[in-house]
Amino acid sequence: MLNWLDSIYSDGTKTFVSDPAPRIGDTVEIRIRFLKEAPVEHVMVMSLPDGLERYDEAFPTKEEHGLVYYTARVPVTEYRLCYYFCLAAKDTVYFYTQNGLTTYIPDHTYDFRLRTDFRKPSWADGAVMYQIFPERFANGDPSNDVQDGEFEYRGNKPVHRNWDDIPYTYDEAKSLDFFGGDLDGIREKLPYLQDLGVTVLYLNPVFAAYSNHKYDCIDYEHVDPHFGGDEALERLCRAVHDAGMKIILDISINHTGIEHKWVKEGRPYYFRQEDGYLQCWLGVDTLPTLNYTSMELRDKVWREKHSVLRKWLQPPYCIDGWRFDVADVFARNGRVQVADECWKELCAAIREENPDAMIIAEEWGDKAEYLQGDLWTTPMNYFGFGRVIRQFAGLGDPFLNRQPLLGGVHYTMTAKDAAARAREHYAKIPQFLADCQMNLFDSHDIPRMHNFDSIGFEKWKSAVVAQLLWPGIPCIYYGDERAIGGYTYHDHGFRYPMPWNEPDEEGKKHYVTIKTMTGLRRNVGAFASGSAQLLYAEGRILAIARFDGERTYAGIISMEEEERTIDLPLGLAGAFGPKSGTDVFGSKIRGEVIREDGTASGTFRMQVPALASFLFECELMA
Amino acid sequence: MLNWLDSIYSDGTKTFVSDPAPRIGDTVEIRIRFLKEAPVEHVMVMSLPDGLERYDEAFPTKEEHGLVYYTARVPVTEYRLCYYFCLAAKDTVYFYTQNGLTTYIPDHTYDFRLRTDFRKPSWADGAVMYQIFPERFANGDPSNDVQDGEFEYRGNKPVHRNWDDIPYTYDEAKSLDFFGGDLDGIREKLPYLQDLGVTVLYLNPVFAAYSNHKYDCIDYEHVDPHFGGDEALERLCRAVHDAGMKIILDISINHTGIEHKWVKEGRPYYFRQEDGYLQCWLGVDTLPTLNYTSMELRDKVWREKHSVLRKWLQPPYCIDGWRFDVADVFARNGRVQVADECWKELCAAIREENPDAMIIAEEWGDKAEYLQGDLWTTPMNYFGFGRVIRQFAGLGDPFLNRQPLLGGVHYTMTAKDAAARAREHYAKIPQFLADCQMNLFDSHDIPRMHNFDSIGFEKWKSAVVAQLLWPGIPCIYYGDERAIGGYTYHDHGFRYPMPWNEPDEEGKKHYVTIKTMTGLRRNVGAFASGSAQLLYAEGRILAIARFDGERTYAGIISMEEEERTIDLPLGLAGAFGPKSGTDVFGSKIRGEVIREDGTASGTFRMQVPALASFLFECELMA
Repeated sequence: MLNWLDSIYSDGTKTFVSDPAPRIGDTVEIRIRFLKEAPVEHVMVMSLPDGLERYDEAFPTKEEHGLVYYTARVPVTEYRLCYYFCLAAKDTVYFYTQNGLTTYIPDHTYDFRLRTDFRKPSWADGAVMYQIFPERFANGDPSNDVQDGEFEYRGNKPVHRNWDDIPYTYDEAKSLDFFGGDLDGIREKLPYLQDLGVTVLYLNPVFAAYSNHKYDCIDYEHVDPHFGGDEALERLCRAVHDAGMKIILDISINHTGIEHKWVKEGRPYYFRQEDGYLQCWLGVDTLPTLNYTSMELRDKVWREKHSVLRKWLQPPYCIDGWRFDVADVFARNGRVQVADECWKELCAAIREENPDAMIIAEEWGDKAEYLQGDLWTTPMNYFGFGRVIRQFAGLGDPFLNRQPLLGGVHYTMTAKDAAARAREHYAKIPQFLADCQMNLFDSHDIPRMHNFDSIGFEKWKSAVVAQLLWPGIPCIYYGDERAIGGYTYHDHGFRYPMPWNEPDEEGKKHYVTIKTMTGLRRNVGAFASGSAQLLYAEGRILAIARFDGERTYAGIISMEEEERTIDLPLGLAGAFGPKSGTDVFGSKIRGEVIREDGTASGTFRMQVPALASFLFECELMA
Repeated sequence: MLNWLDSIYSDGTKTFVSDPAPRIGDTVEIRIRFLKEAPVEHVMVMSLPDGLERYDEAFPTKEEHGLVYYTARVPVTEYRLCYYFCLAAKDTVYFYTQNGLTTYIPDHTYDFRLRTDFRKPSWADGAVMYQIFPERFANGDPSNDVQDGEFEYRGNKPVHRNWDDIPYTYDEAKSLDFFGGDLDGIREKLPYLQDLGVTVLYLNPVFAAYSNHKYDCIDYEHVDPHFGGDEALERLCRAVHDAGMKIILDISINHTGIEHKWVKEGRPYYFRQEDGYLQCWLGVDTLPTLNYTSMELRDKVWREKHSVLRKWLQPPYCIDGWRFDVADVFARNGRVQVADECWKELCAAIREENPDAMIIAEEWGDKAEYLQGDLWTTPMNYFGFGRVIRQFAGLGDPFLNRQPLLGGVHYTMTAKDAAARAREHYAKIPQFLADCQMNLFDSHDIPRMHNFDSIGFEKWKSAVVAQLLWPGIPCIYYGDERAIGGYTYHDHGFRYPMPWNEPDEEGKKHYVTIKTMTGLRRNVGAFASGSAQLLYAEGRILAIARFDGERTYAGIISMEEEERTIDLPLGLAGAFGPKSGTDVFGSKIRGEVIREDGTASGTFRMQVPALASFLFECELMA
């Protein structure tokens, strides 16, 4: 039996908002839907033009697939339109926000919100991102390889390693180990990436630096010669754009490397300790922290016409966005807290160069106040996605795991908690940014899921399925599609050289899984920019519907250790069962459409095996 | 049987924070408490210095009244300290924020928060506020009374009315009716107010204007002559301060009156419609709206040394705060949205004149982002208090009531919803502002509760009790303490002249109730600045404990239509029963201390009559 309260749904997609990016002076149509038999007598939309509560009545405008749609016409009077729904039933007014339903008047934390002055990058819908750690992806030009002992850096000398020198153990690993990956290598692999379904490259830093990770930058103005120099980036950017793809670069403007010319020139751009020494990020003595109370520094980094952040957005590179390293701590240092003003300036500067640019922040926690349109496009969405799905799969949370007293608690996350964790993030941001959330579960900073003993193929596949169920842009970390090896207890273990040999069976299963995911993300509107409605969250089984005007999919993830039979309420999303006997991955679906008086009830009684995931298109109600 | 999870409690009071107003560089002790038998293995405090998660372990430091206190030492490194608690039990880590408990990692919306750069007005603890509509309170100087037809204002002439000309019906009422109330009248009544227990006066506008409410100001620089002019205000302020009391004035800087000299002088300070006419607030054609894109206007209102807002904070007046009319819409008009920057400037200007000044905003809704320390001290707390308690008492919500389609739904608010509504407000603001929330249920803008047919004495008394149960400053609207008359369907009905004759029985009951309330608020730390812990919220019965290091009180409000027997879990707050057989109002308490093996269990089984409220000091556990 479907509960009509669970069927109430709206969001900021085109299904529910006539124009998700309106202009001031427009009137937008705002819709909500629920089961047609719901005892709703009136629906109103509350908005707050100039701070005054305004109520516009919504009227039934469509009945389809057992659902009724109510539509209100709401004027857009200022740069934002915040609203929620009021549904009058017999004895209760229900209030519906991005956080769901209450019987009491909600605060404005979870208002639905449109913006007139910002919109998502034009290429975000259906995008698929791929993260590359350049030194470890492909060696296109061996002539630029770092040679053994080629330079000396703080008493250490680089080691040239052979590409196939794996397994690469922790004892051996140093940040001065070089395998020879470079930008020409990436360029040569573009056809491979296109076959996989990738549309956006995100590269870890490429600017001149001593280490292999290059977060110790010595020159923001030039690409590291071992990666092929500026010309190689120019070639890569041209090839990427010719292929209809996008490219995002990574930069740490929180700190430079200790050998940066600004240090040598004695520029007053750095924080100093009381003893006069440069203050360094997390105390790492090669990474002095920049002090943005210096206006000259701001000029050089984002204000001037050819400043660092602007230069690479301009021809001949025309990069499509920036990823900011340690964005969480940027421009913050005790008494000096200039982050808010700096982000405002630099995000505006980036959008001045390219209004379509994506701004990605390394932020692992909640920072919803930076996700309202004017600042970040997305964090690396560990908080609302990666940390959630990893914890749901049983890995524990990386932040809690670092605390011996908390990490030792063996909590098995429930589906309800997983849904609540995701909602914490998505319920506070506008849809146009929800659509852009960079949804990753592996990266250069967190152990690859599939290399944990406790994660088999099925749990890993669930995380890939989840990348289709959460709104946003799936991000693949290089090598995951080939089940790349590596240990899980240190960074070096998640930065193995890409294995280009013929993949083994596990690698092939990974490739097919990811390619299936990318195909759906790119080609099906429901995943490209659709709605996401929670259908089911009981025990450790989570089910979400994704839909647009065309098609409706249901995704089911079970972290239960045993097979379960569940009553999946597909009717909440206007559906009653799968369209076919197998799901998009070819898995057989076992279940039964529950009928009442010969009519599909909207409940699909499904056998869900232990540790399994399914994704299938639904048959819609009459 | 007490549930240990319900006993988990912390807040920002001195019981739980060693220094609620620390300085950068300090280390503060942060505490949490819960039942001593709770299966908690470790407690940590998570804070975010410079954006980085930091965990400090808390250790058991005290056992008292069946509760154990854990304390962590946390460094204060920047202008704010945001934190939450992590409690490790066997299989679950619990997270505790100002919004309560979760088993998943919380976002930062509800972090506990201290500020180093702002603190509450020094006189806020134990303060009792009293709102006066000056034209209707007391006539100290009949020689300044408005005379019949004394002036002409837009074709209308004033009417002089006798003080006892009540009942004052809607058909008769005009905003040009004058009864003769003035500032000398207020001054003469200070002993009366002191007897009642008032410590802070809040006066509706006193600056020169034509109407009796004076929101149509024609001169911010001078007190209306019918109120006695500037000298009367000087006398009043001196008398108030000599009596150890405080005074807050009301101003609308959103609009002036149409006869203001700035209009006559043609100053470019106003919004204009497309047709060139002045744009007026809500279309009221006597109230043209000021446009704060004019820097000259900002100079005159708050920037210059003797600007409007500064002048009255200076000698000889030295007022103790401002209440801003229609603060919700101030500096907002479609494409022009300069409210954020204007509030920042003007709040800083006020605190520059008087760091102890209280800034009260007329805001009926949620505006937590303005309640973080740097801007408002408090809204008129309709959202988190007045609207809640009125709706709990069955009056419906004033905003929903205005909508025929929503107001007609007869929802009887549950205690759970009432608690959730209050939590929406308090869970997002720091304690030092929670302590300052202006908790009113009647005002010049909302019908007096006691004049509704559906509100008898007991329901009204519940609202007064609630003023002690919610953190903040109770505000009494003049005349409530005498059960002043008036109709409920129009403003005029809630602005009756104060009845100075001997009160009837109902009036005496009101007076005693309020005087009991003010006495507790002023003299008992638990109410002056104590903690507020939710004990019980079932059906329509709500119970809250207030406590400090000294004493613990329990307040119970029942809106049930029949008597109920409830198991009140006083043990959650370290108590087991009332100290005496009658409560602070003299009501007999019927109930039984539940014992297990001869020992008080912490449950008090209480008979709660229909529509009743109780407030009693508790006997604490051994």
